[in-house]
Amino acid sequence: MPSEIDTIKAQLALQSIETPSWAYGNTGTRFKVFHGNGVARTPYEKIDDAAMVHRLTGVAPSIAIHIPWDQVDDYSKLATYAEENNIAIGAINPNVFQEDEYRLGSVCNPSEKVRQKAVNHILDCIDIAKETKSGHLSLWFADGSNYVGQDSIRSRQDRLAESLATVYSALPETMTLLLEYKFFEPAFYHTDVPDWGTSLVHCLALGPRAKVLVDTGHHAPGTNIEMIVAVLLRAERLGGFHFNSRYYADDDLMVGSADPFGLFRIMNEVVAGSALNGDVAFMLDQCHNIEPKVPAVIRSIMNVQEATAKALLVDRGALSEAQGRGDVLAAHEVLMDAFSHDVRPLLGEMREEMGLQKDPLRAYWSSDYQKRITAERATGQVAGWGA
Amino acid sequence: MPSEIDTIKAQLALQSIETPSWAYGNTGTRFKVFHGNGVARTPYEKIDDAAMVHRLTGVAPSIAIHIPWDQVDDYSKLATYAEENNIAIGAINPNVFQEDEYRLGSVCNPSEKVRQKAVNHILDCIDIAKETKSGHLSLWFADGSNYVGQDSIRSRQDRLAESLATVYSALPETMTLLLEYKFFEPAFYHTDVPDWGTSLVHCLALGPRAKVLVDTGHHAPGTNIEMIVAVLLRAERLGGFHFNSRYYADDDLMVGSADPFGLFRIMNEVVAGSALNGDVAFMLDQCHNIEPKVPAVIRSIMNVQEATAKALLVDRGALSEAQGRGDVLAAHEVLMDAFSHDVRPLLGEMREEMGLQKDPLRAYWSSDYQKRITAERATGQVAGWGA
Amino acid sequence: MPSEIDTIKAQLALQSIETPSWAYGNTGTRFKVFHGNGVARTPYEKIDDAAMVHRLTGVAPSIAIHIPWDQVDDYSKLATYAEENNIAIGAINPNVFQEDEYRLGSVCNPSEKVRQKAVNHILDCIDIAKETKSGHLSLWFADGSNYVGQDSIRSRQDRLAESLATVYSALPETMTLLLEYKFFEPAFYHTDVPDWGTSLVHCLALGPRAKVLVDTGHHAPGTNIEMIVAVLLRAERLGGFHFNSRYYADDDLMVGSADPFGLFRIMNEVVAGSALNGDVAFMLDQCHNIEPKVPAVIRSIMNVQEATAKALLVDRGALSEAQGRGDVLAAHEVLMDAFSHDVRPLLGEMREEMGLQKDPLRAYWSSDYQKRITAERATGQVAGWGA
Amino acid sequence: MPSEIDTIKAQLALQSIETPSWAYGNTGTRFKVFHGNGVARTPYEKIDDAAMVHRLTGVAPSIAIHIPWDQVDDYSKLATYAEENNIAIGAINPNVFQEDEYRLGSVCNPSEKVRQKAVNHILDCIDIAKETKSGHLSLWFADGSNYVGQDSIRSRQDRLAESLATVYSALPETMTLLLEYKFFEPAFYHTDVPDWGTSLVHCLALGPRAKVLVDTGHHAPGTNIEMIVAVLLRAERLGGFHFNSRYYADDDLMVGSADPFGLFRIMNEVVAGSALNGDVAFMLDQCHNIEPKVPAVIRSIMNVQEATAKALLVDRGALSEAQGRGDVLAAHEVLMDAFSHDVRPLLGEMREEMGLQKDPLRAYWSSDYQKRITAERATGQVAGWGA
Repeated sequence: MPSEIDTIKAQLALQSIETPSWAYGNTGTRFKVFHGNGVARTPYEKIDDAAMVHRLTGVAPSIAIHIPWDQVDDYSKLATYAEENNIAIGAINPNVFQEDEYRLGSVCNPSEKVRQKAVNHILDCIDIAKETKSGHLSLWFADGSNYVGQDSIRSRQDRLAESLATVYSALPETMTLLLEYKFFEPAFYHTDVPDWGTSLVHCLALGPRAKVLVDTGHHAPGTNIEMIVAVLLRAERLGGFHFNSRYYADDDLMVGSADPFGLFRIMNEVVAGSALNGDVAFMLDQCHNIEPKVPAVIRSIMNVQEATAKALLVDRGALSEAQGRGDVLAAHEVLMDAFSHDVRPLLGEMREEMGLQKDPLRAYWSSDYQKRITAERATGQVAGWGA
Repeated sequence: MPSEIDTIKAQLALQSIETPSWAYGNTGTRFKVFHGNGVARTPYEKIDDAAMVHRLTGVAPSIAIHIPWDQVDDYSKLATYAEENNIAIGAINPNVFQEDEYRLGSVCNPSEKVRQKAVNHILDCIDIAKETKSGHLSLWFADGSNYVGQDSIRSRQDRLAESLATVYSALPETMTLLLEYKFFEPAFYHTDVPDWGTSLVHCLALGPRAKVLVDTGHHAPGTNIEMIVAVLLRAERLGGFHFNSRYYADDDLMVGSADPFGLFRIMNEVVAGSALNGDVAFMLDQCHNIEPKVPAVIRSIMNVQEATAKALLVDRGALSEAQGRGDVLAAHEVLMDAFSHDVRPLLGEMREEMGLQKDPLRAYWSSDYQKRITAERATGQVAGWGA
Repeated sequence: MPSEIDTIKAQLALQSIETPSWAYGNTGTRFKVFHGNGVARTPYEKIDDAAMVHRLTGVAPSIAIHIPWDQVDDYSKLATYAEENNIAIGAINPNVFQEDEYRLGSVCNPSEKVRQKAVNHILDCIDIAKETKSGHLSLWFADGSNYVGQDSIRSRQDRLAESLATVYSALPETMTLLLEYKFFEPAFYHTDVPDWGTSLVHCLALGPRAKVLVDTGHHAPGTNIEMIVAVLLRAERLGGFHFNSRYYADDDLMVGSADPFGLFRIMNEVVAGSALNGDVAFMLDQCHNIEPKVPAVIRSIMNVQEATAKALLVDRGALSEAQGRGDVLAAHEVLMDAFSHDVRPLLGEMREEMGLQKDPLRAYWSSDYQKRITAERATGQVAGWGA
Repeated sequence: MPSEIDTIKAQLALQSIETPSWAYGNTGTRFKVFHGNGVARTPYEKIDDAAMVHRLTGVAPSIAIHIPWDQVDDYSKLATYAEENNIAIGAINPNVFQEDEYRLGSVCNPSEKVRQKAVNHILDCIDIAKETKSGHLSLWFADGSNYVGQDSIRSRQDRLAESLATVYSALPETMTLLLEYKFFEPAFYHTDVPDWGTSLVHCLALGPRAKVLVDTGHHAPGTNIEMIVAVLLRAERLGGFHFNSRYYADDDLMVGSADPFGLFRIMNEVVAGSALNGDVAFMLDQCHNIEPKVPAVIRSIMNVQEATAKALLVDRGALSEAQGRGDVLAAHEVLMDAFSHDVRPLLGEMREEMGLQKDPLRAYWSSDYQKRITAERATGQVAGWGA
């Protein structure tokens, strides 16, 4: 069925996966930040790396930034630089967890002064977003507590609601607020937005441009993430994804490396919900602690593409038919059949039709990019998480 | 502070913990149902047991029933019998998972006919509730799937919403619909109402008399249950609890036996949210697989009482003051201090003031109740789960 | 590299995957046992089903039995019947958990009399094994406790050691004792053999013919099973596998249905450890609660074959070379490349070379077997777990 | 039973809980290290803090050190300083994870040169131990991998065994090697010593002075830690504890703050195994990220004492009798009765008999210690993890 394959390739060519500026800097665990070669030192160099990734993959046309990690004097200049490199500035991620004042939280802090400081920073980020023409304000709060009784869970919800209301009221019509949830870490006893339900409760109170952000690494063990995707799509509140993978906690490994089948199941729900090339934002959120950054990002994008291609291969007619007659094995087999396919040739073809090389990773290594950045960035302070 | 203690005792005396009819019958794991002595054989004998529990504890004035496990010809007669024994019929629990037709689910089944059958059974249960003057329709669905692709997660949500709407529209003003969620089991791949968020989404669509039911054993490992309690109380959608305890899955052990500190944290959130003696229903949902049933229920009630007493002992002024100034250790200590108290003497006093014996368990064993039921119920078919 | 592919096909053709008699009977959860069509009623019919599976797959030459579920008067007659059907009786699984006396355990029970009864049953099973020429005594104990303090963990270890010593001393030279561990269920607080470490401690005390049995569903969430496989192979104490898959607990789903990547990682460790076609026993241990039994077993075997084929495709030279130079991405890619292959054509070829049809599942449905057993087994009591 | 209480108090007075030098420095998560007031700047100041803790509690007579975090020019001088402050240097903890060369591991690294470097550092630590008269070499390895295929699990086991053999052969007779295991982190895919079983396998290969170290935060969710304690005590291979508590991962919270009941169950197994005041080492291993360090350590010690006191209160005669007759509820109640006691008055008495103040935490705050260190340590570089 050649025409169907063409449709699939067309959808894959349209896919858009945002890469995060912080993936191009050094990251680590609480035990150690290892130092790689050729790591970006400035927001501009991160844009260089993101642009390289987009040149090779064709599906990574924007870069998310984190403020203040990517603080610059002139954001319109930064946006122009990105544009000249053929990419856009994507989601703006305000950082309200790396100052000593945030020891007990930011927008949920018992101190009104600290909450105000955090809200002000987010408002500043909205201004930055206007300058960079970003469509997403992506909010993740490290807020929570470590010990029972440390603070009132309920009061913190009220403070959160109040802070978010202020932020939302400043949001231009062109922007969407994404509220990320996280099961645990860095708060260990309770987290103020621990699950999609809490995020949704706040989004519903805010308005239609507030949506839930699903980070694939932010769930309890055993959580069925595609179920959450289905429920949020049905509620029209799925704002986007932070992709990564993990074995146990929020490991921030390359997406698809630990759970290729899980990633396929998520993309299958996205495709089934007609949400592939629409309003939902697909973003990576990863830490390349021990592997070289740029190729790790390329590999991650390829993994998302492979999962997407498999999801597009699902024979939805046969699936629906088998489901309808309650044939458990046949319905299951339709999905497994799609997953079993080796979609790399299909993706290679698609890339060639886009004027790219078949294998972006090989293309990267056969270019001199890594050699060049290793040399150019040998001195100076490389970018990092700032922890 | 004697007057404060009196207030605490008064609140404890008012507490109401519903016991479930199925706790008085035989239950087991998928591997084996062990047979105990003196196990109830009929709904009437279950009422006898529940009444005995209430006589000894003074805080268990109602019994939840499960239909068809507790099917009788004349429900008003059953309610009268309960009343004569000084207890009431509590929540009605429709069972839509134990017929072969429910192999692929009940209200979410791909077959409209099966869905209709399930909805009809629930509507029948509303009629029963009217006869027994029950205030709660308690819904738990075993619906879900075992294999990826087996059915459409999204379509099942639509079917669920439609089924629930029919049920809700038949609900008398005097009743509340409780929608229970469960992380997993008996469906293993996906569950149609797996978490409080999904339950809440449906309750919001239904109306104000639809509320979320929290079963303490139905969460992923590491889930902070008191956080859910706080969020649902804030949203005015906490309908009630199914109490039990567990180490790993839905073990249905005696509440407080595995996690006395967790139970205290939950009750602390209930007390902090002024929800102790109001609309929230406190119910046991347990399986006494290897221990004698009636004393196990008594012990469970005592465990809830101890956790509640500790929660009432929390010095809320000192707590709030320490939280306000961000004193982590002091705030934490206020809660730990309450938990460290041995509240058994306080509860013993309270019981004596209620005209009861100090220790209900000792009172049970010094009565001849167990001996009597062992003799009386030696023959015939004992009640069970019907699995 | 055709010759390499031939070697791979030769190894796949030699593979031996034992199917369990209980997979051909009815099973269920604690909530419900659903009734399927054409389910085996006797040990002889289970052998018929297992033989059919072997006829179609060519790699399932034995059937494990469970005593007393598969109790017959004459075991040599049963073995002969199997032989006539071209399969063998595999592991003997003594069942010491389904009598009321085992409420507090079997070989760890506080009562010496109960322990003796359990040991005697296992000794009887050794006699059965002699008659059926089985090579494996496969021991799983449901022993444990539900409540803290219920019994002495330490004393139960002593009783376990003593019971096992008696059993081991009766074991003929030709047999291996496999000691299975399980994280939880049906005991909820503690399990007497909860992990591979405890199993190994006892095996070391017994002697070289006592080995650890790894059931893929019996681990805590997040456990790296292939790590256990590697460590046990290194210690020469990996006795075999009980294959199945799961999302959360011991779901006993079709192996590879929930975790195809995990299964591949396990088989990769088996192949890397040169343990594919040697002493390690590969057995299914599954419950087909909602799907038809025989095709579910066939699909499971195919899943194991696909994972094995992918593991055999791993380019071990390239892997080792990349690992040696610390190239994280390249080494990882070698494994992912093998996993990404669609090995179904390779397996189809191999089957045709074995004189089988390419696709055993399609071959099953195009035969009249299911129709025939549905008709023949329409009446009478089907086999089940006996719970 | 006054004489029994005296015995209990005597055992409690003899208890010895080692505090870790790193608890007195700054620590944090990968997101942020918050800066506290009065944090120790040098190994000497850490000794000051540990000595203060011992002065107030009477049961913390030694301090564990971490090399190179506590590197000094003259270790015998350090030991003398400790001695003058009435405490001893406890376990020596070699750090082989914070140099760039350890990116792919230390003693399991694919590079022989790196392994040698790690082994040499550990051998140096044995020399330090000789100078400080330490009895324990405490080994924890951050070794593992993040991606499937990154390295050979099996080869790494061989390298580990070889490295440990070299270390063990250099160990003086007076020392015990403790091999700590950890479920995950900082390696995310596999950890080279992930569980007690792997640690035990290596200890058995080494010899009788190699024992397993149980860190209470290093287990999969749902793991029954007291079971591990019982099994290791029975095998005579429990070397000691790293105490802390957690809700989900290795949170390193104050021991007993998240799981007072779990801590009681562990101490109960210790007491039942007659291991309280013998060879087993009781050590804290915690990170006080948001709370003041010294009082957090004091509170942690008090929590261990309370759990121990409750374990000592268990009526072992009654317990054993109830267990023997299989009375589940009665046996369970014996343990719960001990746990329900408020043991703080008993511990207060004991402290007064030791010449201490009743409440060490109140004693701390009424001293001027915190004020003094806050002033004295206001300038300079405070000690930290060095990440």
